[in-house]
Amino acid sequence: MIQVNAYAAYDAKTPLKPFSFERKELAPNQIQIDILYSGVCHSDIHSARSEWGPAKYPLVPGHEITGRVINVGSSVTKFKIGDLAGVGCFVDSCRTCPSCREGEEQYCEEGMTGTYNSFERGTTIPTYGGYSTSISVDENYALHISEKLPLEGVAPLLCAGITTYSPLRYLKVGKGHKVAVLGLGGLGHMAVKFAASFGAEVTMLSASPSKEADAKKLGAHNFALTSDKNTMSSLVNTFDVIINTVSAQHNYSDYTGLLRKNGTMVILGIPPVPSQVPAFSLIGKRRSIMGSLIGGIAETQEMLDYCAEHNIVSDVEVINMDYINEAYERMIKSDVKYRFVIDMASLKN
Amino acid sequence: MIQVNAYAAYDAKTPLKPFSFERKELAPNQIQIDILYSGVCHSDIHSARSEWGPAKYPLVPGHEITGRVINVGSSVTKFKIGDLAGVGCFVDSCRTCPSCREGEEQYCEEGMTGTYNSFERGTTIPTYGGYSTSISVDENYALHISEKLPLEGVAPLLCAGITTYSPLRYLKVGKGHKVAVLGLGGLGHMAVKFAASFGAEVTMLSASPSKEADAKKLGAHNFALTSDKNTMSSLVNTFDVIINTVSAQHNYSDYTGLLRKNGTMVILGIPPVPSQVPAFSLIGKRRSIMGSLIGGIAETQEMLDYCAEHNIVSDVEVINMDYINEAYERMIKSDVKYRFVIDMASLKN
Repeated sequence: MIQVNAYAAYDAKTPLKPFSFERKELAPNQIQIDILYSGVCHSDIHSARSEWGPAKYPLVPGHEITGRVINVGSSVTKFKIGDLAGVGCFVDSCRTCPSCREGEEQYCEEGMTGTYNSFERGTTIPTYGGYSTSISVDENYALHISEKLPLEGVAPLLCAGITTYSPLRYLKVGKGHKVAVLGLGGLGHMAVKFAASFGAEVTMLSASPSKEADAKKLGAHNFALTSDKNTMSSLVNTFDVIINTVSAQHNYSDYTGLLRKNGTMVILGIPPVPSQVPAFSLIGKRRSIMGSLIGGIAETQEMLDYCAEHNIVSDVEVINMDYINEAYERMIKSDVKYRFVIDMASLKN
Repeated sequence: MIQVNAYAAYDAKTPLKPFSFERKELAPNQIQIDILYSGVCHSDIHSARSEWGPAKYPLVPGHEITGRVINVGSSVTKFKIGDLAGVGCFVDSCRTCPSCREGEEQYCEEGMTGTYNSFERGTTIPTYGGYSTSISVDENYALHISEKLPLEGVAPLLCAGITTYSPLRYLKVGKGHKVAVLGLGGLGHMAVKFAASFGAEVTMLSASPSKEADAKKLGAHNFALTSDKNTMSSLVNTFDVIINTVSAQHNYSDYTGLLRKNGTMVILGIPPVPSQVPAFSLIGKRRSIMGSLIGGIAETQEMLDYCAEHNIVSDVEVINMDYINEAYERMIKSDVKYRFVIDMASLKN
């Protein structure tokens, strides 16, 4: 067995605390990754606090994992000891349904196996995530990571990165398109970087004037204050795509009018209360509201390769493991630019 | 001036009554159509009763018009006296915005000129619709109609037909696709006919078991009772497209789960209260909710030509003009298979 140190939520109400557990010996198809950095996603908080249904405690969050391969199973061909590797939001899927066969394992019809708060497929062995010293994963569900990029900035690409990359690619966003990004957090800042990198004209929509300078530094060409009615009126029928990253309660119809004909609002955040959608706001311009969920393994690899080629990483604030509960409180106040990433060395000393 | 007999709403509360008015002498670019049939759309009721904002009274409804050309302006080249012709939901648009230039005049950025309850472009002359003995219209906003089809069944194609044809074509529905149609009325029965004709497998979703036989007669391959939980569960993740024609209050999320990955629910009805959309129901399978509004002139012509080629018309109940108020009451109770069409001869005697 492989001894692992971690931080876990023991229940929905109390702070995360140290936790030790064992991972099974490596299966022939698995690689063992020494975790170097683990990004902190807002989903971690929702899951740890049972806000998305009852969690399986103790729960070790973390699905933005980067590290180095320290062991490989006997049948592994894609990785060797010493390689950099990453793990995202899932570590397995059924592999046989149409979505899996199409390489879109995130939409697996039997449900993907989450990197944490799930069970290893066909067992009652819980999956434990990246707030831990090492993880073992099927080589087909691990990602190759370039040596060219700072590893702490790569970690959030495994969730925040692919979550924004995938719908922009699905909608074929590129030169000549106008893209708005609603909300400047972990997802929003990656949406700005990718949309700008793909050649689109990017507008940050935000309720906070203080975000203007930051948004432009990230690559946004324009900034629009959502509380300014004149500005918002002037943007009616403007955007081909709005990347909506907001998970606070809001009305989609406050923004659908900004879409031009055939435009699409991509929903990435999950507000606590369903949003209202008046039919008129969609019918008048053949507008769409579309959901999107992370990305498949192949597309995640494509995204990581694209980032290496174009020198794109997440802007992060590196923290020690024992800062995690304070980090959660700051995230709830949106007080982070733009992602906390845990330096897992802090759990190994 | 051209003397015209009509039926009009004089206010939001009282029944439609006879009305006489004059249409201007034909402009060089106009054709005059002797109206033979005029379909009765639910929008007529909403407009006549000021349910979609204050109407311009007296209001002559009717935007599903078929008839014969009896006069042509001096510069007309596309029609000649004796031709069959049709008029749909609009009679003009700005002609210069991107949507107009793309032949999608229904999405005109200055707003299309409605066939009724609008003003002739740049004037304060009201437009009067098809519950009248004749209409004059720019030849570029009139449609050619084949002599092969029964003219009363063609009338509803000008609105109910194109409204369902257009999104099915936009979404490239064809062989191998599974399409559900929600609601079996004027729009729904055309959606079934078109989707089946395009080669899709069509399922009628209805709350009323009595609709099964009718739906199958129209070309639906399957019928699903929306009140039957087992049936609905068995249809989760099934459809590529749901054509939602319901304008009564309902939750889109009762049906979005029936969409498979990348599936689209097309909203054609306008419920009185905005529907709620939980983000989860879209995100989990990259599902979309899309609005769609009638179609442009070019696509409407394409649809009419397709119908002539494939022998498709609306199923109608032909009425006399003086039955209109009773027809409205029956439509509100969904008591019509599937469209009332006024025989305008009844207004000419």
